[in-house]
Amino acid sequence: MEIDLPDVLADVTAAFERYEKALVSNDVAVLGELFRDDTRTLRYGIGENLYGYEAISGFRAARSPVGLNRRTAKTVITAYGRDTAVASTLFYRDSLPGKVGRQMQTWVRFPEGWRVVAAHVSIIDEPKET
Amino acid sequence: MEIDLPDVLADVTAAFERYEKALVSNDVAVLGELFRDDTRTLRYGIGENLYGYEAISGFRAARSPVGLNRRTAKTVITAYGRDTAVASTLFYRDSLPGKVGRQMQTWVRFPEGWRVVAAHVSIIDEPKET
Repeated sequence: MEIDLPDVLADVTAAFERYEKALVSNDVAVLGELFRDDTRTLRYGIGENLYGYEAISGFRAARSPVGLNRRTAKTVITAYGRDTAVASTLFYRDSLPGKVGRQMQTWVRFPEGWRVVAAHVSIIDEPKET
Repeated sequence: MEIDLPDVLADVTAAFERYEKALVSNDVAVLGELFRDDTRTLRYGIGENLYGYEAISGFRAARSPVGLNRRTAKTVITAYGRDTAVASTLFYRDSLPGKVGRQMQTWVRFPEGWRVVAAHVSIIDEPKET
């Protein structure tokens, strides 16, 4: 198990950045492309638990495009072998003072490219620095 | 990329169940064993963001063993290839009426066995069934 092979890390980082850009611009087509189209794809969102690609894309289509802008911080992307990576980032929104978002995604490389197979997003009170 | 190979799924499910048992009994040794001992291991918890194995094991050691019991529901474990799996489960605690917990873990197989490399736990209001 080789960790953080440079070419793998570069590829998945590019996919992650493409996702982030699509998220803040509500580019539903790209968001849909980057989640794996499969019933096993799972997304725990800020207020909902979505099982399967259909449920996730239904949520995206219905989502308000307002207020999606955010600042990310402490992004950590780690690649395990050539086909798996975890991308984790904190995020902040002006509409959520004192709160921090956490987004964690598991990416897997398929013949069609890197795809998110599982994601979990949550918002908590900003913890005190320790 | 073969998904849910039966032997792989069986192995990672056994590891997941061992983790769950250790969690509710606060078996800190087993919890420590099953998270990968590495600075890149990451755990977003219910109220804290822990970077690296040291931070995670420090949190475990300091944690109150009271009230860890929980019921799990809608557990989904999916294995991608032979070395990667995602295990996701909802959970409920008597102390948190009206709330649902979500736990998502990415497991990777190393020579020493299956280990959690990233985890995200959060609590939200129970969403309405749709």
